[in-house]
Amino acid sequence: MKWIMSELAEIIMDSRVLPYLWQHNLGLEKESQRVTTHGQLAQTNHPSLLGKRRYHPYLQTDFSESQVELITPVTKSVSELMRWLAALHDVIYRTLPENELLSPLSMPPSFSDDLTEIKIARLEKYCDVLYRRYLAKTYGKAQQMICGIHFNFSFDDELLDKLYTVSQTTDSFKTFKNDLYLKVARNYLRYQWLITYLMGASPVANANYTSRAGDFQGTMRSIRNSIYGYTNHEKLNVSYDNLADYVHDLEKLIQQQKIICEKEYYAPVRLKGGASLTELLENGIEYIELRNIDLNPFSAYGVTNEQISFLQALMVYLAYLPENDELNTMEQGNKISKIIAAEKPNEVSQYQMLGLQFLAGFEEWIQRINADIDDQVIQQAKLYFEEPKETLSARWLQQIHFDQTKISVQFALENKQEALLKPYQLAGFTTMELSTQILMFDAIQKGIQVKVLDESEQFIQLQYKGHIEYVKNANMTSKDNYIVPLMMENKLVTKKVLQTAGYQVPKGIECNAIEEAKKYYPKFAQSGFVIKPKSTNFGLGITIFKSGAKEPEYQLALERAFQQDKTVLIEEYVPGTEYRFFVLDGEVKSVILREPANVIGDGKHTIAQLVALKNESPLRGSHYQTPLEFIKLGEIEQSLLAQQGLTVADILPKNQKIFLRVNSNVSTGGDSIDVTDQIPFEYQKVIAAASDALGAKVCGLDVIITDPKQKVTAPGAYSIIEANFNPAMHMHAYPYKGASHRLTMDILKMLYPELE
Amino acid sequence: MKWIMSELAEIIMDSRVLPYLWQHNLGLEKESQRVTTHGQLAQTNHPSLLGKRRYHPYLQTDFSESQVELITPVTKSVSELMRWLAALHDVIYRTLPENELLSPLSMPPSFSDDLTEIKIARLEKYCDVLYRRYLAKTYGKAQQMICGIHFNFSFDDELLDKLYTVSQTTDSFKTFKNDLYLKVARNYLRYQWLITYLMGASPVANANYTSRAGDFQGTMRSIRNSIYGYTNHEKLNVSYDNLADYVHDLEKLIQQQKIICEKEYYAPVRLKGGASLTELLENGIEYIELRNIDLNPFSAYGVTNEQISFLQALMVYLAYLPENDELNTMEQGNKISKIIAAEKPNEVSQYQMLGLQFLAGFEEWIQRINADIDDQVIQQAKLYFEEPKETLSARWLQQIHFDQTKISVQFALENKQEALLKPYQLAGFTTMELSTQILMFDAIQKGIQVKVLDESEQFIQLQYKGHIEYVKNANMTSKDNYIVPLMMENKLVTKKVLQTAGYQVPKGIECNAIEEAKKYYPKFAQSGFVIKPKSTNFGLGITIFKSGAKEPEYQLALERAFQQDKTVLIEEYVPGTEYRFFVLDGEVKSVILREPANVIGDGKHTIAQLVALKNESPLRGSHYQTPLEFIKLGEIEQSLLAQQGLTVADILPKNQKIFLRVNSNVSTGGDSIDVTDQIPFEYQKVIAAASDALGAKVCGLDVIITDPKQKVTAPGAYSIIEANFNPAMHMHAYPYKGASHRLTMDILKMLYPELE
Repeated sequence: MKWIMSELAEIIMDSRVLPYLWQHNLGLEKESQRVTTHGQLAQTNHPSLLGKRRYHPYLQTDFSESQVELITPVTKSVSELMRWLAALHDVIYRTLPENELLSPLSMPPSFSDDLTEIKIARLEKYCDVLYRRYLAKTYGKAQQMICGIHFNFSFDDELLDKLYTVSQTTDSFKTFKNDLYLKVARNYLRYQWLITYLMGASPVANANYTSRAGDFQGTMRSIRNSIYGYTNHEKLNVSYDNLADYVHDLEKLIQQQKIICEKEYYAPVRLKGGASLTELLENGIEYIELRNIDLNPFSAYGVTNEQISFLQALMVYLAYLPENDELNTMEQGNKISKIIAAEKPNEVSQYQMLGLQFLAGFEEWIQRINADIDDQVIQQAKLYFEEPKETLSARWLQQIHFDQTKISVQFALENKQEALLKPYQLAGFTTMELSTQILMFDAIQKGIQVKVLDESEQFIQLQYKGHIEYVKNANMTSKDNYIVPLMMENKLVTKKVLQTAGYQVPKGIECNAIEEAKKYYPKFAQSGFVIKPKSTNFGLGITIFKSGAKEPEYQLALERAFQQDKTVLIEEYVPGTEYRFFVLDGEVKSVILREPANVIGDGKHTIAQLVALKNESPLRGSHYQTPLEFIKLGEIEQSLLAQQGLTVADILPKNQKIFLRVNSNVSTGGDSIDVTDQIPFEYQKVIAAASDALGAKVCGLDVIITDPKQKVTAPGAYSIIEANFNPAMHMHAYPYKGASHRLTMDILKMLYPELE
Repeated sequence: MKWIMSELAEIIMDSRVLPYLWQHNLGLEKESQRVTTHGQLAQTNHPSLLGKRRYHPYLQTDFSESQVELITPVTKSVSELMRWLAALHDVIYRTLPENELLSPLSMPPSFSDDLTEIKIARLEKYCDVLYRRYLAKTYGKAQQMICGIHFNFSFDDELLDKLYTVSQTTDSFKTFKNDLYLKVARNYLRYQWLITYLMGASPVANANYTSRAGDFQGTMRSIRNSIYGYTNHEKLNVSYDNLADYVHDLEKLIQQQKIICEKEYYAPVRLKGGASLTELLENGIEYIELRNIDLNPFSAYGVTNEQISFLQALMVYLAYLPENDELNTMEQGNKISKIIAAEKPNEVSQYQMLGLQFLAGFEEWIQRINADIDDQVIQQAKLYFEEPKETLSARWLQQIHFDQTKISVQFALENKQEALLKPYQLAGFTTMELSTQILMFDAIQKGIQVKVLDESEQFIQLQYKGHIEYVKNANMTSKDNYIVPLMMENKLVTKKVLQTAGYQVPKGIECNAIEEAKKYYPKFAQSGFVIKPKSTNFGLGITIFKSGAKEPEYQLALERAFQQDKTVLIEEYVPGTEYRFFVLDGEVKSVILREPANVIGDGKHTIAQLVALKNESPLRGSHYQTPLEFIKLGEIEQSLLAQQGLTVADILPKNQKIFLRVNSNVSTGGDSIDVTDQIPFEYQKVIAAASDALGAKVCGLDVIITDPKQKVTAPGAYSIIEANFNPAMHMHAYPYKGASHRLTMDILKMLYPELE
């Protein structure tokens, strides 16, 4: 049985298909011009921090050196697409030089008369440069500087399978798939004007955009989609009836030298599959690319969730929508689009009724299949047709008050500032651990592909030039062997191994029963000691006696410890200051000192006010979303104040430092202070060697040092009290005080020594 | 202030010392003759299964090829020493050829007149052989065949530190330590007769033990400690006053050619420290070796816990005991020992009073310091002196009824049979997991040093020729990289990685919220599917719907799954048989099929009886102490019987197989059946490659195979449903049916490719 296209509507509505209908692959490319804080085209090179453009999967340049292109990976949902777009923007915003911004507009900034500020992208491959030179010559440099959004769409394999099965066609799967995408493409061409109207947002051109003086007057809905926009000089006829014709027509255009390659065919929708037309024909259509979307200047990302949702739903609807509407030919679609593009933004479109009719049918269909689409998506589109003042184009016009440069710089500045506010986060992925966010930032920046395999477990996949690595919690990698973390998880084993290798650890004993442990009291009665469960973390069940203990206290501490673990360690107390050494591959990369929550008086503010002031730092927050936590003024803090004869209402004298906590954990408002440069190298060497003795590649060692001025070889000079196999890294990158150590970059270099 | 020896008693009783007083290092060497089941000296070579004697830390040969020497590692307590002794015996008993035993006696078996059956140990080093030839010539081969126990003892460093500190001496620590051990050695020589009496157990010599016919008549307490025993020909004078004199005297004896090396000095106690006398003098005394202990024929290990406890306590007591007893000189001690050795076992010793006096003082001191020593240890010694019939020597004499060979074979056989009863266990370490016990067995057998770092966590250290490896749970090693188990711990990530690499896994989706998951119902309503939590094990929260489900069932299953994890997978159900593939280093080593608990009828027994019979197998037990678990007849089993129209009282027809469980877990009485040879190699190759794709060195893959006769490339031929990073190994080594695969040995070979 041959497959009949017109049956597609029925197939899509089949109950076997409906559960899979919203499974798609979505991708997005977004171009933006780098501009100065004065709104002029940036004259600098593409940022070198972004590694090599040759390999960068996310951050490229398009026509000009200043034209940044952000490319999302293929995603499965609009929300996933948007988080990637957010993340890529975070990376580019924080990578740009201080005085550079990303223009929020499709239309390029003002140029000087001779356009000399437009530099063709400095790409490595000569043919890439050559092609751009050709474009500059053919279309003029200015037109090539226009930016936009390209939206890539495909149906998920499972959905395609279901559609194919239900169709019962005898055609091949490839043919079926080609026909499906061709239908969508044809319908898209028929209704392209809808997008021109709804997403048009380029009402004004800047100085010297076109040398054809008087080419167009005043404002338009979308210069970019108009005849003055990003378009071929003459009308190119390419068939969308079937793939062979499509390929054939394009090849013919090339032969006729009307275009020099298929990339030069500036259609609102392109069929994609492979690197060349030959490959496209061979592979069949793998996805389609929508190209007529202007940058939305009101969104920091150039496009909103609602816009993408609209496009996604539209793709499915266009697959469903019968093609028997005689009035709406592709030819007609193009014509209407051009007319709409040229309309005044504030005026009612002459195609208002046509638009509202289409949207009514679209809405009715969405309700019929009970699709899970935000009602606003369609309502807003309807509003745009009903109230032209609400369209992006009209709103932008209203916003700029005839000074597009000034306002666009203002918008661009706000976008960048937002990204700089919390540099330790990666927008889109703020639900993940900070260290993972920072690692992902670094990876994206350097052009290492990132795939989140399990978000809640911080499990990601990295890939660079085909070399795959997996990372969990930002530093659990293939470079450590399995026995090492198992060793460190076990305080007892860690101590035995370190001790055997000749490193100083607190002396002590292990007990497997509380009655046995109680017997050891005479050993510890007179000296400082610590009782701790063998394997818990976060200080639970640990008691410190700095100078001996009475027997009941001793027994109580044992009970607390045995509640946490069936094995308890009793260790000598080692006096001194505790430091966290972060060791990577046999080298100390950073040493942090953690201070208990504290404030320093200024002779003016009360303690409560000082705490509030300190908490204002963007580094502080709650629930580990920031490198430091808020200082609290709860019972524990107030009781410690009381012990010092203070209340929160007291004004603290200038420079007096008071502590609000005994414990130095960052999680209870403590400060992290980088002291790497203050710890003598001989200590760093010994601690790095201790990490080696454990066989660790990545290790956070908690070390008590009596006095760093003492020789490391002095008896009791230091004592290693804990080794952590997944040490936090964000507090080293964003310490309260001291130098920042970007350990995530060290992790990437360890995983990818080949990184350029 | 010079250190005064006589103050030692006071120092030992100091409250700062007492908490440390029982911290010692204990080691033991035990020789045994390999004999045939007829009681003759074994003529075979030392078992080749034991690897190379050159390196073996535990199992050596002494004088003759048949004379096995078991050497425990240094231990911290009597119980630890005994568990090692038990383990070493398990290994040697199970390594001996079927018709060989270990003689339980110090005295060698009967020899032919010409002693030709005594073969000097075939050692690699020529000087070792030469020395034995010299001994044979000097003392006669027979005397060198005597076996015994050597007990090595030292005070723990912490205890020594305390003693030294409390002594306030200005002498060096080394001098102090030497003096301490010399005092113990001198006192031991004074009271050596006590051990001769209490531990003497060689009352009877066998044929041709001595060629000096009529040398001694009848029986003795200890031939071994008598002038006919293991002794130098003439009295050798060696001073124990100080270490320099001790070394000097021994060197003089060598110069005088009275002995050819210090090893030939057969004293009841030796001072040890380094490989030579020069080293001893340089290092100081590191431990002392007691040498006059006969094998206890009543213990499978040649010595009991109580005997070692007695010796340990004695060492401390002798350090305490003042040396001002004029009557008890070392000279005198030796004389008394020789007299006691020659006494008739059943007769009251002429030194009974002296013995009881000593023991009374010993006991009084133990009580005074409230030492934690089993009361029986001293009471039994007292009993031995009061009732000579109770001594080892007298009891052995009574036991043998003038046929020592027959009885000793009988004892030896029982010892060996006990060790063979549960071959999957390693005596002394039965509290550990079976796989770890089996791995330790293999390591010990091959001469790889084993150190238990954390018993309850199955964390051990292995060492072979200086190459250290750590192992947790028998197969978690340095050979796997850290990310691999993290990957396998996460079903979702495992699936994604396998799928990307092109292996078949069940299709499915992940849900992070139950409301989201409920929406997917239409997808699964009609087909077989499985709902399971992302990361729990042991089947908790898993529901299988073999052919679709009603919506309430679907929702209930989701609720069950979400109770176990915040992420739930819904996967297609794959029909077929589930196999466990054990893959090591890219090779399938074993494939196991697990069958639910079942019995097969014989037309005679009831189901309850059949279960009881099947449960009699030594492979079955409870709480994972055996490779298989008992089949239970609880509610679940009886309900399944009822469904089949049966009760436990029904007699099952011959060859009818019934199942008592639906699930195939070994933990609920299931059978493990090795089917490695039945799974086509092409399947094994694919599964091994899948393990490689995960990057795993050790991996247990649960795979559903529709039909092994099908080509592996057929769609749906197999599906990998789980990957385990710490797969059980004991069920492969001791399956219910099929070939045994000793995977623990494969693990050792992976860790030690250099293993000889």
